[in-house]
Amino acid sequence: MIVSDMAMTPRAALLARYRAVRRRTEQLCAPLAVDDYQIQSVPEVSPPKWHLAHTTWFFETFLLRPLLPAYRPFHPRYEYLFNSYYETVGTFYPRAERGHLSRPTVEEVYRYRARVDECLGALVTEAPPDQYRELVFRITLGVNHEQQHQELLLMDVKRNFAASPLRPAYRTTPPAPAPARPAALTWLERPEGVFEVGHAGDGFAFDNETPRHRVLLRPHRLASRAVTNGEYLEFVEAGGYREPRHWLADGWQVCRKEKWEAPLYWEKSGDKWWQMTLAGLRPLADHEPVCHVSFYEADAFARWGGRRLPTEEELEVATAGRPVRGNFVESELLHPAPAGGDGQWFGDVWEWTASPYSPYPGFRPLPGSLGEYNGKFMVNQLVLRGGCCVTPESHMRPTYRNFFYPHDRWPFTGIRLAEDA
Amino acid sequence: MIVSDMAMTPRAALLARYRAVRRRTEQLCAPLAVDDYQIQSVPEVSPPKWHLAHTTWFFETFLLRPLLPAYRPFHPRYEYLFNSYYETVGTFYPRAERGHLSRPTVEEVYRYRARVDECLGALVTEAPPDQYRELVFRITLGVNHEQQHQELLLMDVKRNFAASPLRPAYRTTPPAPAPARPAALTWLERPEGVFEVGHAGDGFAFDNETPRHRVLLRPHRLASRAVTNGEYLEFVEAGGYREPRHWLADGWQVCRKEKWEAPLYWEKSGDKWWQMTLAGLRPLADHEPVCHVSFYEADAFARWGGRRLPTEEELEVATAGRPVRGNFVESELLHPAPAGGDGQWFGDVWEWTASPYSPYPGFRPLPGSLGEYNGKFMVNQLVLRGGCCVTPESHMRPTYRNFFYPHDRWPFTGIRLAEDA
Amino acid sequence: MIVSDMAMTPRAALLARYRAVRRRTEQLCAPLAVDDYQIQSVPEVSPPKWHLAHTTWFFETFLLRPLLPAYRPFHPRYEYLFNSYYETVGTFYPRAERGHLSRPTVEEVYRYRARVDECLGALVTEAPPDQYRELVFRITLGVNHEQQHQELLLMDVKRNFAASPLRPAYRTTPPAPAPARPAALTWLERPEGVFEVGHAGDGFAFDNETPRHRVLLRPHRLASRAVTNGEYLEFVEAGGYREPRHWLADGWQVCRKEKWEAPLYWEKSGDKWWQMTLAGLRPLADHEPVCHVSFYEADAFARWGGRRLPTEEELEVATAGRPVRGNFVESELLHPAPAGGDGQWFGDVWEWTASPYSPYPGFRPLPGSLGEYNGKFMVNQLVLRGGCCVTPESHMRPTYRNFFYPHDRWPFTGIRLAEDA
Amino acid sequence: MIVSDMAMTPRAALLARYRAVRRRTEQLCAPLAVDDYQIQSVPEVSPPKWHLAHTTWFFETFLLRPLLPAYRPFHPRYEYLFNSYYETVGTFYPRAERGHLSRPTVEEVYRYRARVDECLGALVTEAPPDQYRELVFRITLGVNHEQQHQELLLMDVKRNFAASPLRPAYRTTPPAPAPARPAALTWLERPEGVFEVGHAGDGFAFDNETPRHRVLLRPHRLASRAVTNGEYLEFVEAGGYREPRHWLADGWQVCRKEKWEAPLYWEKSGDKWWQMTLAGLRPLADHEPVCHVSFYEADAFARWGGRRLPTEEELEVATAGRPVRGNFVESELLHPAPAGGDGQWFGDVWEWTASPYSPYPGFRPLPGSLGEYNGKFMVNQLVLRGGCCVTPESHMRPTYRNFFYPHDRWPFTGIRLAEDA
Repeated sequence: MIVSDMAMTPRAALLARYRAVRRRTEQLCAPLAVDDYQIQSVPEVSPPKWHLAHTTWFFETFLLRPLLPAYRPFHPRYEYLFNSYYETVGTFYPRAERGHLSRPTVEEVYRYRARVDECLGALVTEAPPDQYRELVFRITLGVNHEQQHQELLLMDVKRNFAASPLRPAYRTTPPAPAPARPAALTWLERPEGVFEVGHAGDGFAFDNETPRHRVLLRPHRLASRAVTNGEYLEFVEAGGYREPRHWLADGWQVCRKEKWEAPLYWEKSGDKWWQMTLAGLRPLADHEPVCHVSFYEADAFARWGGRRLPTEEELEVATAGRPVRGNFVESELLHPAPAGGDGQWFGDVWEWTASPYSPYPGFRPLPGSLGEYNGKFMVNQLVLRGGCCVTPESHMRPTYRNFFYPHDRWPFTGIRLAEDA
Repeated sequence: MIVSDMAMTPRAALLARYRAVRRRTEQLCAPLAVDDYQIQSVPEVSPPKWHLAHTTWFFETFLLRPLLPAYRPFHPRYEYLFNSYYETVGTFYPRAERGHLSRPTVEEVYRYRARVDECLGALVTEAPPDQYRELVFRITLGVNHEQQHQELLLMDVKRNFAASPLRPAYRTTPPAPAPARPAALTWLERPEGVFEVGHAGDGFAFDNETPRHRVLLRPHRLASRAVTNGEYLEFVEAGGYREPRHWLADGWQVCRKEKWEAPLYWEKSGDKWWQMTLAGLRPLADHEPVCHVSFYEADAFARWGGRRLPTEEELEVATAGRPVRGNFVESELLHPAPAGGDGQWFGDVWEWTASPYSPYPGFRPLPGSLGEYNGKFMVNQLVLRGGCCVTPESHMRPTYRNFFYPHDRWPFTGIRLAEDA
Repeated sequence: MIVSDMAMTPRAALLARYRAVRRRTEQLCAPLAVDDYQIQSVPEVSPPKWHLAHTTWFFETFLLRPLLPAYRPFHPRYEYLFNSYYETVGTFYPRAERGHLSRPTVEEVYRYRARVDECLGALVTEAPPDQYRELVFRITLGVNHEQQHQELLLMDVKRNFAASPLRPAYRTTPPAPAPARPAALTWLERPEGVFEVGHAGDGFAFDNETPRHRVLLRPHRLASRAVTNGEYLEFVEAGGYREPRHWLADGWQVCRKEKWEAPLYWEKSGDKWWQMTLAGLRPLADHEPVCHVSFYEADAFARWGGRRLPTEEELEVATAGRPVRGNFVESELLHPAPAGGDGQWFGDVWEWTASPYSPYPGFRPLPGSLGEYNGKFMVNQLVLRGGCCVTPESHMRPTYRNFFYPHDRWPFTGIRLAEDA
Repeated sequence: MIVSDMAMTPRAALLARYRAVRRRTEQLCAPLAVDDYQIQSVPEVSPPKWHLAHTTWFFETFLLRPLLPAYRPFHPRYEYLFNSYYETVGTFYPRAERGHLSRPTVEEVYRYRARVDECLGALVTEAPPDQYRELVFRITLGVNHEQQHQELLLMDVKRNFAASPLRPAYRTTPPAPAPARPAALTWLERPEGVFEVGHAGDGFAFDNETPRHRVLLRPHRLASRAVTNGEYLEFVEAGGYREPRHWLADGWQVCRKEKWEAPLYWEKSGDKWWQMTLAGLRPLADHEPVCHVSFYEADAFARWGGRRLPTEEELEVATAGRPVRGNFVESELLHPAPAGGDGQWFGDVWEWTASPYSPYPGFRPLPGSLGEYNGKFMVNQLVLRGGCCVTPESHMRPTYRNFFYPHDRWPFTGIRLAEDA
């Protein structure tokens, strides 16, 4: 991560940013009943309560413990309970059992948050000048970390609610503003060339976006918007889920084992398709981007149509310099919306790329325990780009690299097509 | 089940009994936070919330739906969500996923209870005389069913809380009254003879306790009290958990696979043994009955000492005619207490028997869906007798047959020794 | 096990008996290719090669090592490789991986057998008179043990061959002699009474058949023959495998999980049923006894017809004193044959009983490692009676207790019905 | 795959090449007992018999059936039994159960081979000129396919034999010729530049090596030989297998779950290390290349030493134009040998790269079923380069891309280090 001119951020601005993000997390929980905070319907999601506590643990562990001399941990076992995966910090409670913890209660977790927020305020106010640069860096990292968990929290609530036969709604949302007419699909061509990708210069970025480096891209074309439900439905109805020849071998195996027949959250009632949303069950809308597909499905869909997925470098070069605008969490739709003609480069759905998540050439993880943040996951996953409708807008940038396993479907994942030129 | 003179129970008394048991369930939940209602730490336990709803479903399904013409189900999906295992009623939500349901909320479940209680009151008041005998029978069955779930609820809360690294207490309890001195172990001898066992005559009993029938017992002796922690600790410290020759082959396999080294809830800290209780961690007390052992451990312990477990008929004959008194849930200890010299025949710990849970000769299950209550479980399990410290006293009788799988350890299970005479 | 008048058996006769049984095992392997000796298609079967070696290990371990001073083990690792489950002898190679051992080769295993046979001959000839009683006992036990493995070998070969898409035949067999007309089903009634069951007196028996003891039987009736394929087919075609109400809960769970739709080895082609036999695929014959059903299926079939399974004591009392004649392995049919009117009490199919496999009252296992032979399996299994078409006739007797898990279907298991009188 | 000037290969030469490779497979089986042909000790290996049959099936399916009009399949079920993974050819026998097939016997499989060889000879002789180019292509592909299975066969035999407590030898082998003194480790530096990689022009290559394309490489250095056992032992003894910080997160999880403590086939006896080889157990030799490590171990070792693994492009550029010489199967060592100073670019051990196995830009799989050969595996695996001591020399070339999952250890896999310049 790089935070330039760190020593220049005023203390009041730093604290305001911290408090705004912390408050935002709690606002996102407002529609939840105490009961909802506890659920872990599948091992890959975490209970909302755990997200609230873990993000707090992050500030306690990486800010308060090392930098605030007078700090006394809120509870001796929280270090163990709310460590996610930092081996160099210590052992941690098994991930798959997070839903088995009724204590601390939701109320206690909020008290934990309040106490850490209070101490963080003291730390920002009192930190000596020679520590200030490090303080800015770590708070900025922690704030970005908490934004990631805001997105995870919404993803996980959706997964939990979709697992319930009652199909409850997280909250009502306004319908997406329908464009006058569907955005036509066009192709953006780029000739061969050497380009620079990766983060450099001012502003925050995660370590996995560095170093900036040169890449050679082949001539190619990128679609001008994401694949829609209507387009994907053709693949479903053409028997795409029953034809191994479209699929990677590992993908086909998962498809059979998990009995996939459509994207996650699609369900058919009679001859009509519905989809589960954060506002409950809604009819499938043709012009919305298809969402909640795995890499395997995205790849099979592209192959079926004679196309391919873009590489992460192709997407980065295409979006470099563009303003980061789109359907993010601030739109409050909490659902992908039909393309409006602006290229749909940001927001709506995370776009699967053909790029395995690997270190950039010359990559160095952060020193110390924070080096575990990103680097140790650089195998077996694929890169996704652009953010989605539950990502905070201020969290996104063209160099941002998200990553998931090829079978993951519960993030808000979609498809942009590419082809060789 | 047999409820004699059913038509004689006054309506007011019937309703009072119903209400007392229903209220008791809710009282048992009073120490729980909303968070605690939701937890299912292992597949064999159910969340407290589910127990509250399922017992209500029982009255709704077997009383209100068939007998109260005006009754409208509280919610269309509850039939599916809160059916435990009645195949002839319909499909049911998977048992292992009961902890994944945050909705209905605890508050809604209490509303469900209140509504069913209200309608049940109306049903008792208004039922025509020719239905009244059936009404008494079904309410009595439902009340006994709810008492079983009161015990399960406490067993399950203990299991959930023991799984937490915080080892929370359900509530504080008074220490067990220590007897002046430990009850000596003596042996009660009985010569060979033909005896009658099983239920007949007045009073309620489950169908699995019938029909009353004659059995031939061999000469034998029964211990005058349950095995204590101190006695069991000798087995542990003699390497009992590392010596396959004491164990049944299936038991040894479980012991190795699960890495058993002591009863469930025992833990060693330094060289001192502790045990998890409903009041939190407490030092292991030598004179308390050993509790939370599987059939395999009970059998291995008996074999190690050159003894055996009693049969269910030996225990029934020994307890027939004795008053049902002991350390039941009403003592509020919620933990087995040292023997006081009365034979410890009831309460404290369920006693594993050597008897597989099989139908009595001539057994006929109840007609209809209620025939699934007991009969379909008559394989692969062992009979336990006598009730325990979390059983309601009014729920117990000498003919009562409880049953669990030989590897189960989360019920309050203990050991009484026997030997051939 | 009891072998009376052991010291009286002449040495030559003892050796002849030993040699006959050993030779018989090898004859049973004659139809096998070297390839066939190696297969373990499911964990519960053992490769034929393993049976050949293990039975030899039994004589080496329990006769040659302790009693023949000059004996040097054939190979230092065979004690580990061919120990089945004797914990007190030492550790053993994992059962589920027996099919992973290509060495020793079949040829080496036959050399192992020859060497042990030779030394056993020397032992019988040279044993001092004061050891002779023990010698007779152990050889008799070993011979009976080898007969059990002869049956297992044929069961396992059938299981292996049935798993092959080629459905190979072990060998051709003559068709069963069809009776002039099917034996009618009649009922043998017995009034209540106290009877003696279990082994006593002259002749060999396993320890689990002792001690002889008195039991009280209720009035009941037993069917005069085993259930036929034709009768069982009615259950299948009436939807018996889709109706949970006929099944024990544990059985229904297995039935669903394993997708059972008929007995093991039945397969439907078009609208015709076939069954796999040791002679390959043959059309299902209506009048043959149904075979290869689990206890769960046997119990469900009986319940569907309003009947029950007999207890092991009812069967023992019914067969006591009857000559042990029937369709055993010596008939060379290797398949159950239609009832001929003699009650079908022995041979054809092992009859599931309603009796859990438990110790008889007063049971004491053999001393030392041989005590592991039977006693440690006395939980979770059910008793079967009467022997089957691949059992050696000389191995059977009315007190014989076989035992399998309720889900096991690969033994030659069938059904005799009973009912209360 | 590209076979240039295909129509120019004389028929006799084509057939001679075919026959030589087919004969070679059978020679590799010469040390096996019939018993050994059958074993599948873990799901990822195949029985030798299956390799013999499957390679034959390949010629039958892709040559004889489509191109020899008079051809009648050898057996109707072999298409199903010996299809590995070609979904578009039809369904196939489950991979994990290949060790459960005793039929066809080894003898029958050799007859199958002979028959197909005979018909292939006829096909080569009689094919009309307009089919000849396609014939050369398919036979060349089939011959390369069979060479891959020669290597798999030796890998799998080693895995099977290592699983046996007897640790049998496949055959005795000469010790590796020890170099006068160990080859020093030096670093070959290369500055940044654009290079071409991938296959083009004359000679055979698989489709996954195409198309040839330009890549931009960063300045880097490559080690002059593979990592040795002695070097790797330092990592082991420094606690490398107990320190999560060296490992990728997925790798650490596998390491813990599988209880890895050293490379596959290493075992410690007292304080001495041994390794299982195709010649049986041998002391671990310090100067031999470390072998049978997973990608996770290779990556952790590199990270521990402050280095990294090379990319596949770095290795290809380094080896381009070098003669393909090294310790291949023809040396008959069947084991990696100490580096001799020639860079060890080929043979000895497959070198893990940091490159996920992805399609080259513009990649097009072969048309039809043969398109399943390589393309559908392009996810979740890593590329390996250079061949090993059980690879046929004529099978290797600088553009060759092998691929395995990151946890795979049973191939002859080793490590070459790299670093940024």
